[in-house]
Amino acid sequence: MAKQIGLFGFGVVGQGYYSIAKKHQQNLLPKTIVVQNKKKERNPELSFSFDPNDILDSNYDIGLELISDPEEAYHIVSTLLKSGKKVVSANKKMLAAHLPEFLQLEKEFGGSLLYEAAAAAGIPIITTLDTHFAGDQIEKLEGILNGSSNYILSQLFEEGLTFEEALKLAQDNGFAEADPTLDINGSDVSSKLAILILHAFGKFVPEKDIPTLGVQHIRKEDVILAQKLGLKIKLIAKAQITADGITAFILPSLVNPKNALYWVENEYNSVKIISRNLGEQFYKGKGAGSLPTGASVYADLTKSERGYSYSYDKLNGELPKTFQPKSGNLEVIVRAHSENAIKSLVPEAEIVFNQEAYWSVATISAQLLQEKQTLIQEEEISIVALNETATKKDVLQALKEEVKVTISLN
Amino acid sequence: MAKQIGLFGFGVVGQGYYSIAKKHQQNLLPKTIVVQNKKKERNPELSFSFDPNDILDSNYDIGLELISDPEEAYHIVSTLLKSGKKVVSANKKMLAAHLPEFLQLEKEFGGSLLYEAAAAAGIPIITTLDTHFAGDQIEKLEGILNGSSNYILSQLFEEGLTFEEALKLAQDNGFAEADPTLDINGSDVSSKLAILILHAFGKFVPEKDIPTLGVQHIRKEDVILAQKLGLKIKLIAKAQITADGITAFILPSLVNPKNALYWVENEYNSVKIISRNLGEQFYKGKGAGSLPTGASVYADLTKSERGYSYSYDKLNGELPKTFQPKSGNLEVIVRAHSENAIKSLVPEAEIVFNQEAYWSVATISAQLLQEKQTLIQEEEISIVALNETATKKDVLQALKEEVKVTISLN
Repeated sequence: MAKQIGLFGFGVVGQGYYSIAKKHQQNLLPKTIVVQNKKKERNPELSFSFDPNDILDSNYDIGLELISDPEEAYHIVSTLLKSGKKVVSANKKMLAAHLPEFLQLEKEFGGSLLYEAAAAAGIPIITTLDTHFAGDQIEKLEGILNGSSNYILSQLFEEGLTFEEALKLAQDNGFAEADPTLDINGSDVSSKLAILILHAFGKFVPEKDIPTLGVQHIRKEDVILAQKLGLKIKLIAKAQITADGITAFILPSLVNPKNALYWVENEYNSVKIISRNLGEQFYKGKGAGSLPTGASVYADLTKSERGYSYSYDKLNGELPKTFQPKSGNLEVIVRAHSENAIKSLVPEAEIVFNQEAYWSVATISAQLLQEKQTLIQEEEISIVALNETATKKDVLQALKEEVKVTISLN
Repeated sequence: MAKQIGLFGFGVVGQGYYSIAKKHQQNLLPKTIVVQNKKKERNPELSFSFDPNDILDSNYDIGLELISDPEEAYHIVSTLLKSGKKVVSANKKMLAAHLPEFLQLEKEFGGSLLYEAAAAAGIPIITTLDTHFAGDQIEKLEGILNGSSNYILSQLFEEGLTFEEALKLAQDNGFAEADPTLDINGSDVSSKLAILILHAFGKFVPEKDIPTLGVQHIRKEDVILAQKLGLKIKLIAKAQITADGITAFILPSLVNPKNALYWVENEYNSVKIISRNLGEQFYKGKGAGSLPTGASVYADLTKSERGYSYSYDKLNGELPKTFQPKSGNLEVIVRAHSENAIKSLVPEAEIVFNQEAYWSVATISAQLLQEKQTLIQEEEISIVALNETATKKDVLQALKEEVKVTISLN
């Protein structure tokens, strides 16, 4: 018998899911769609409601939470789970904040919660971590998890655009919001990484504890240096097992052509996993868009209907404990507009003047990155991780050579 | 309560699964292991048997079929399914021959059959096709599905080895069997592609109907030509939807650096899928080895235990019908040792003499490839698909330039 499905939200993702469900004709269309805006004209063939309780208080089997407001999303998901319902959500910010509580509710009331679309949208990474890596030990997970940022970097590297031109193009093409802050400052990525860490390592890391810098300060100068080294810059999210826990950070990073992440362009996302049993695995797919995200929601719905729930293999049946990531050290290139700014961040490092900017190559701790966020934002300091692609010596040499060229032109 | 697990076979894959299950301690170790060789010394801590009926006639919950003999494997899997049991198998040759019958048995007796390790071993491609592409329409699937062949090609291209040296190295490193025929002639790949086609397109194509050529005739001459064009050769398995059905073939093919398959080296496998909803997806992982393959088996076991079974979304609840792939046309480079051989295959095409061999660039049908298998094998004709990387004109020009160089050296 067809399951009763209640849908919350009918934006880009909701409409993506709806169009897929309609084409596929497997009785997975929503019976009711709860929306907010009463003034918008709606398709009269669908059953809309403006009251969430029309679904929450009724006898629906599965609830799809696809709205943008995190607080309302939390209310919907927790209420459904308390009624032992099956739930699908795509709200990464909200999920990254409340997953331990939701797992508790699943245990207590017998419902289930799937959320494949919340990280790397089109890539089935959560289901894969949950099933395929059962019994495995993941050593490292790294990925490109934000389509807007990657699109901007592709335009800088491949088309030679300025940051401002690239951002505008991303917005024009629907890959970045009108207010792109959450996209370009990496905040969206830290929610996703927090979710993936729970499935990959069985630890709950609040996203605020993940040192994060987005692409907001990457400019042509950084691109020129990377290209001189035969490399590209990608916004890499990384989590890694260490002797005493895990390290995690999100940072623009150099990558070389031998790394599969080098070839991930424009709105694509990707995830690379190194594990004891499987060696290296690499997945690439679209990280945004109505159909790719809607397809992940639809896939969750079919899994949920067939009784699938996450096993959280790495938790070994326990509830997740909040975990503070360890402060690993990172080799980075630092670029600032003033000598003072760079000295405030890395006081001991050699400073090179090149392309009208001050540069250093230094080892900094993830903890320092966290502490100096205000300085980094106010001074618009660019930080790019070497990511094992180049040595400090190579980078300094490239910076100094460039200086020579500048001098010889004067 | 712990499920009773019966294991058939304790070779490379069986031992891989066993070592993972032992480390993970989730009660997923086998109660009995049926083996053939009575003379081999066995670990006294494990419970071995030499009689399959010790498992088949008893009250086990799940059977793992990990033996190499296809006929015995068929007997085991069909017997277990007839008892409504849960079964995991990794025997690609056997599965590619009998899947429609097994689906019928699942329906009739309520058991289930999972076989992730049977295609692209370490990559969770079957589960992904089955869950993540629900409601989607796959337009094209292409992949590198044989680690031995890919290893040989990597050694030819990256290390400059001869075919014979590369094959020997593959054998020494355990990536190819002592009798490497099934690996290098592509036969192993056609079993895998047949399995993937069922999940991707909902059609059962007998592997004998897939035009197949392996890497057995690829030599330095082909490598030199590809490198001159800035390309590599990979053994590509491809299935694609067309107006009146699907085309499928397995052929050494040119790939360019913009194609993610270009960067898949050595024993790695990969699959690229283009679909209506998800655009392009790409997966890469190890295609062979005790732990990667054992990990796929172990993951199947955990899924099976949690009640997961394949949905065969593309079959829409029907049993698969046998389908004859359509005869698509392919642009290929042909190289032969004699002018007669090349004329027998492509009578109309222009012939160029270069590197002591006869070459043509021609359009041939998949059907012709099938019909001329004996000629191709006997004359050791090398056929490399252009795969949309280069034009006929470019290739001919590269071949003719090379001739010029040869002449000027004389």
